[in-house]
Amino acid sequence: MKAKSSVNMVIAQSGGPSMVINQSLVGAVLAARAAKGIGKILGARHGIAGILAGDYVDLRKPSVAKLNAIADTPSSALGSCRLKPSADDCRKIFEAFRRRKVGYFFYIGGNDSADAARIVAEEAEKEGYPLVCYHIPKTIDNDLRSCDHTPGFGSAARFVACALKGDDLDNRALGGVKIDVIMGRDAGFLTAASALARENRGDGPHLIYLPERPFSLDGFVKDVQAVMKKEGRCVVAVSEGIRDAQGELFAKKFAGGERDSHGNLQLSGTGALGDFLAKHLKSEAGVSRVRADTFGYLQRSFPGIASKTDQKEARAAGAAAVKAALKGKLTKGTIAIVRKPGAKYAVTFEAQPVANAAKYTRSVPDAFIAPNGHDVTKAFLAYARPIVGTLPHSEIL
Amino acid sequence: MKAKSSVNMVIAQSGGPSMVINQSLVGAVLAARAAKGIGKILGARHGIAGILAGDYVDLRKPSVAKLNAIADTPSSALGSCRLKPSADDCRKIFEAFRRRKVGYFFYIGGNDSADAARIVAEEAEKEGYPLVCYHIPKTIDNDLRSCDHTPGFGSAARFVACALKGDDLDNRALGGVKIDVIMGRDAGFLTAASALARENRGDGPHLIYLPERPFSLDGFVKDVQAVMKKEGRCVVAVSEGIRDAQGELFAKKFAGGERDSHGNLQLSGTGALGDFLAKHLKSEAGVSRVRADTFGYLQRSFPGIASKTDQKEARAAGAAAVKAALKGKLTKGTIAIVRKPGAKYAVTFEAQPVANAAKYTRSVPDAFIAPNGHDVTKAFLAYARPIVGTLPHSEIL
Repeated sequence: MKAKSSVNMVIAQSGGPSMVINQSLVGAVLAARAAKGIGKILGARHGIAGILAGDYVDLRKPSVAKLNAIADTPSSALGSCRLKPSADDCRKIFEAFRRRKVGYFFYIGGNDSADAARIVAEEAEKEGYPLVCYHIPKTIDNDLRSCDHTPGFGSAARFVACALKGDDLDNRALGGVKIDVIMGRDAGFLTAASALARENRGDGPHLIYLPERPFSLDGFVKDVQAVMKKEGRCVVAVSEGIRDAQGELFAKKFAGGERDSHGNLQLSGTGALGDFLAKHLKSEAGVSRVRADTFGYLQRSFPGIASKTDQKEARAAGAAAVKAALKGKLTKGTIAIVRKPGAKYAVTFEAQPVANAAKYTRSVPDAFIAPNGHDVTKAFLAYARPIVGTLPHSEIL
Repeated sequence: MKAKSSVNMVIAQSGGPSMVINQSLVGAVLAARAAKGIGKILGARHGIAGILAGDYVDLRKPSVAKLNAIADTPSSALGSCRLKPSADDCRKIFEAFRRRKVGYFFYIGGNDSADAARIVAEEAEKEGYPLVCYHIPKTIDNDLRSCDHTPGFGSAARFVACALKGDDLDNRALGGVKIDVIMGRDAGFLTAASALARENRGDGPHLIYLPERPFSLDGFVKDVQAVMKKEGRCVVAVSEGIRDAQGELFAKKFAGGERDSHGNLQLSGTGALGDFLAKHLKSEAGVSRVRADTFGYLQRSFPGIASKTDQKEARAAGAAAVKAALKGKLTKGTIAIVRKPGAKYAVTFEAQPVANAAKYTRSVPDAFIAPNGHDVTKAFLAYARPIVGTLPHSEIL
């Protein structure tokens, strides 16, 4: 590696897209442009796959106006991938980095992407390749152990809360049972956010099932019957990641069995779980009108409804990673979002070891789950509201 | 019936909710409040069901501010129903109307609701009950023969176009085939609106399948393979109402067989069609990553994203019905939305015989469907754009 001024950086995006992952990209790129000590700013297309293939975008080129428009555009502008790098992949990455004089590597993604960044950083150390490697947090699942909440969650939660609000009004008009299946493989944060939809008396969701509590079909039928008796209708928010008492995913009973290279089973992009639950209720709960919708990919990619707080924080997280990397104190880092104590909502962005975000996920804490196991607590609502922002008001007759 | 000043009116909502059906309700109520000659303004809860049960809301009571907030709230504030009135129901309706001195009846809904209004109006005539009966158009399906386009369509189309825009960006990032199943039992207008999502080169949806053209699985596989070869990815917008060469609904192969009292098979509220198509592609088209989402009820009830033009027109249609009813020239009416010729978008609201909107639906005209059978024409885009409004801009790298 030559003098500091000629050290180039590579940035990439990985895992599931979000409505604000481009904010983090642009935050990092603008911070890098403003900084001294960074040469080329290279965006690798489709994550590590683009590095291995030498497929780069020169991110010094686009105007600030274009970058801002990209920041406001959902999904991953550089493209994404779901690749767990092997030691062999890493060697190829370092060869590619060496040729292009790359000393900084930023990887925007969730826990699997943080783990990929950790592997790259540790292999670089083993190989003696001088690399400052930072993970920039992103996941709609909100399940990074390093963050109070993750960029992407607030906007996806906003979609879910809006969707439930509208869907609950729809159910008010036509009655029966409505089941909405919400993303979240291991953590129920996004499903929990459906509770933000409640505004008027009797508003749903009336039942909220998270992966953090065992789900039983018998209990489900009884819960629905109790709500039907009280409200004459029932709206259910259920996580795609619900598990039975033995901890096995319900979705396992229907999914095609497709897995990514991190070993994760495909849960989204199918309506099978919702259809199964609807069919079960029809036959066992004595309700004639039962409908199920699976929100699917709209939760992470719908344009025009991102949470403003989420947008701002995602951008700040990207910038913070570049600044921390340039400081050079920590060479294998991630940016943690830490909520300041006190009544007024505020956060700080801290550089932490990348291992803090990698691999293992965080669940919805017990304090956020109602004792009955099918609702959230006020503490959760207080936690989520400032992240999600104010929802459209609904007035009823 | 006493002097004109004591003639009361009943208004109700029917069929599937929309994002702007409350605009029509409020438009009618405010016009009735402003008019001379109308006594009580009664909102029947859950359509004809509420009339039969005597379940009314006094719509002179709410403040204008509250009414405006209701207008901005999705779904049917009075509640809805799917009931085809029998001659016996009609006699009971007239008994109820006689007791409450009701001389005006407004029914907001789609073609089935128009047919219900027609039945009530014709039975009133037979029975000699003096009733002015107006249907106010509403359907996200855009399939009323009496309207250039229907209130509710613009907003649902806006949801679909936004959803496809985000989903196409998602597919750009992760690749493979994405199938989106869109509402529309008989008419493909809403599915066609997915084409409005296209902005940048290569943008999806790349294939658009409407109920107006026969759908074959073999043709589908070939179409997808051709797009995959050209674009390296493929986004498909497909109507829930697609039919095979014999005219039979594909959804019939999976649906539970539930039907409403108008004889319509349940298509929405299940992911079965999308899952079937995805499975077929996986096994027959040699594509490993195939996902399917079914947009479901979000299309008609999502808050905060209604088309401004749609909101305005829905309100105007409600007001126009009351004004036409008070004129008394036509006693069994519907409000037709007629587009003025010329380059600048403008519409008029015309009173027409209710039979013009009732029962039979309108299909997407041939001029709006591309010769290849799986796309729309420029003429359709020009038709739909002013109704749907400007979409969020998407910028790509």
